[in-house]
Amino acid sequence: MGALDEGHFSVELEDGVNVEVGFEPETLPIEEAVKVLLQGLGEDINREGIRKTPARVAKALCEGTRGYRQKAKDIVQGALFPEAGLDEGVGHAGGVGGLVIVRDLDLFSYCESCLLPFQVKCHVGYVPSGQQVVGLSKLSRVADVFAKRLQDPQRLADEVCSALNHGIKPTGVAVVLQCLHIHFPNLELGFLDSTHQEWVKVSVCSGKGLFENSKATIWSDFLSLLKFRGMNVEKTRTKDSTSPCWCPSQSSSALIPCKIELVHQMDAAVTSILKSLGEDPSRKELVRTPNRYVRWLMNFEKANLELKLNGFVCGKMDPFHPSCNEAEMQSELNLAFWSLCEHHLLPFHGVVHIGYFCTKGTNPIARSILESIVHFYGFKLQVQERLTRQVSETVSSLLGGDVIVVVEASHSCMVSRGIEKLGSNTATMALLGRFSTDAAAKNMFLQSIQNTSTS
Amino acid sequence: MGALDEGHFSVELEDGVNVEVGFEPETLPIEEAVKVLLQGLGEDINREGIRKTPARVAKALCEGTRGYRQKAKDIVQGALFPEAGLDEGVGHAGGVGGLVIVRDLDLFSYCESCLLPFQVKCHVGYVPSGQQVVGLSKLSRVADVFAKRLQDPQRLADEVCSALNHGIKPTGVAVVLQCLHIHFPNLELGFLDSTHQEWVKVSVCSGKGLFENSKATIWSDFLSLLKFRGMNVEKTRTKDSTSPCWCPSQSSSALIPCKIELVHQMDAAVTSILKSLGEDPSRKELVRTPNRYVRWLMNFEKANLELKLNGFVCGKMDPFHPSCNEAEMQSELNLAFWSLCEHHLLPFHGVVHIGYFCTKGTNPIARSILESIVHFYGFKLQVQERLTRQVSETVSSLLGGDVIVVVEASHSCMVSRGIEKLGSNTATMALLGRFSTDAAAKNMFLQSIQNTSTS
Repeated sequence: MGALDEGHFSVELEDGVNVEVGFEPETLPIEEAVKVLLQGLGEDINREGIRKTPARVAKALCEGTRGYRQKAKDIVQGALFPEAGLDEGVGHAGGVGGLVIVRDLDLFSYCESCLLPFQVKCHVGYVPSGQQVVGLSKLSRVADVFAKRLQDPQRLADEVCSALNHGIKPTGVAVVLQCLHIHFPNLELGFLDSTHQEWVKVSVCSGKGLFENSKATIWSDFLSLLKFRGMNVEKTRTKDSTSPCWCPSQSSSALIPCKIELVHQMDAAVTSILKSLGEDPSRKELVRTPNRYVRWLMNFEKANLELKLNGFVCGKMDPFHPSCNEAEMQSELNLAFWSLCEHHLLPFHGVVHIGYFCTKGTNPIARSILESIVHFYGFKLQVQERLTRQVSETVSSLLGGDVIVVVEASHSCMVSRGIEKLGSNTATMALLGRFSTDAAAKNMFLQSIQNTSTS
Repeated sequence: MGALDEGHFSVELEDGVNVEVGFEPETLPIEEAVKVLLQGLGEDINREGIRKTPARVAKALCEGTRGYRQKAKDIVQGALFPEAGLDEGVGHAGGVGGLVIVRDLDLFSYCESCLLPFQVKCHVGYVPSGQQVVGLSKLSRVADVFAKRLQDPQRLADEVCSALNHGIKPTGVAVVLQCLHIHFPNLELGFLDSTHQEWVKVSVCSGKGLFENSKATIWSDFLSLLKFRGMNVEKTRTKDSTSPCWCPSQSSSALIPCKIELVHQMDAAVTSILKSLGEDPSRKELVRTPNRYVRWLMNFEKANLELKLNGFVCGKMDPFHPSCNEAEMQSELNLAFWSLCEHHLLPFHGVVHIGYFCTKGTNPIARSILESIVHFYGFKLQVQERLTRQVSETVSSLLGGDVIVVVEASHSCMVSRGIEKLGSNTATMALLGRFSTDAAAKNMFLQSIQNTSTS
């Protein structure tokens, strides 16, 4: 375990890997720890939907941190090819001095600060030396070795850069990463605002050899070639920057104080998971990680918001809305939500669109009430299909039965588990009362969503 | 082998998989066959860059067709979760009747007509029944089982649809695929035109249960939800369509007749590869595949175009270009090229940008001559770094030494091999003479590329 420290604090090590090859984390202790977390959330660990969640989470964590058990050197070895360069004195190209860049490699990694996955667009450039070039796919494979660990963007860039420098021994090598981290729900603000749909973004870079000096001409060549792909590289943070940690967990809201004992147990469970994965929970970046992860998880505690919802739903309808003269379709689109996938303990988030018919003489429901309903069913262990049904049933009970609900969401489990489908998105639909039979009404509503999403 | 037929001709089979589980193709016979192909291309199989190509190609083909050895049923099993629906009579949602859609799954498959990889954007929708839903990631995993075979878009859609229908037993299931196939070089037209940068596109769909009738309302719901993501689904081809095969190999140019003996040997080698992968080379869609693949491969025969190039390079400069009054930078951007990656025998294609200084009193070189140079160095077994150097050296010898060359390319090997980085793109640069020292000249040229690529 001690050896692991070096890998994290000295990126100058040969390839940054210090766990013995062949070491495989035991999944059983991780499963036990996940059970503690589920119980801490107030869940029945024998409930059908989450019965296998501990096994799924353990498997995903081991897969997602497999980089600790891979050696960058093994990947580059055997993929160095002799390649002639230009005649001496003529210029730079081919196996000597000509810049080679691979752009837009999609990766994902785990945030060492909060244990949630983050997305990475990785760009690697190097200048060959010694008349040899490396197989292009190896740049991606080496980057993935370091992405599949608990990471911070800058360290990830530094480690990939160092490993390529040692493996290829080029004249220079540079790594630029554009990272996206999900925001954290801000319960203190009461509801989710539209900013929760945005990502926390940070760009970082790292260079060795010719790229060591961030003002070298070669950097402007590299960044020029990135710009061809429409990338804005002006704001790239460098190693020297003293900006604070990007992870939103560092500034997220505090826990309810009465649960200190429970939180300690959950913290200990997360610490044991870190150990099982081969990490050192005492290294300085990880010391508060269990606490931050648990704090985040507790947002999704069962029935956390029941009280809040009751306050809203039992309240009066918004008096400022004019009442309907006849049955007229109303719609509230793009209500933001956050939820936690009960199969993988990973967040999914997106928007809910609600349509309904307002019966004659009644008032349309206020958007804030619909937001609170969506909020209530979002903040718990969920599946999107159930969320869709629960929102539609609740709205239906308030509004007389003719309700349509469409939920669109991005699932972290589709990005960070084995399948890594970064661009995928899930939509679900519920049709109640008139909407289940009246195709014209349904189509009018669907068309209205389409109009807002393309505008 | 005979059992495999059924899987291809009857998509009604339980999950379309008919090879015994545990069957692993032998890679040695595939490597031997690849050596025959390389020799047919006029290559020295002991040359450093391609010495390990047979092993790499064999490994990639086995990985890329692993779907033959996977069972969709195994994937869905254990991922069906009980989920309540709405009260009877109220409508559709949750575990009963509410549409569930996963959009924008990126896959790739192999074209059974020409053996080249093609890209797939896959959208799956289903309507749960029996109060159970399937884990969302399983829709992607099942689709991937069938993508990792030799395929045609419509059969791929049908097989995924059938397998999900058997596995989930839903009220209905639908699959929409948007497929992209690379064009084939058209040597008869002499040069590559800009259309070679485009893809052959086809959209197909398949439905079971509620989706069996292509005019059912549920189809318009599904397509509406796809449209939210900006997808144009109007032109989706259905099973009933009698449109010809999409693969451009079916209409590509004929082989030089004097090589019939060689081509027979190469055909036999490809046939043996198909057998090794567990396919039946005699099934009707595959009968002419070896021939089509070899015909495509022969585009990249060593020195195929030497004659053509000599004709151009020894010719006069274009008399219609005005001569330069003083050393002035000239540039020709976006010269299309095609090439074959010598490490993986897979195509890479893109554009070359060339800048140079025209010496006083001389004429700028005609674009068509630069095109022929790019063409000549493209149509062979290559690596992008070498292509960049060779183009720059040749242009330099014609134009007096001050030359900059930037090559941008998409590599099929980055898409279809293990790493599956669909959006990645590679750039290489050569700087000769003045461009290797004069940063202002270099930046002016790079800026001009950026201006065209963002406009």
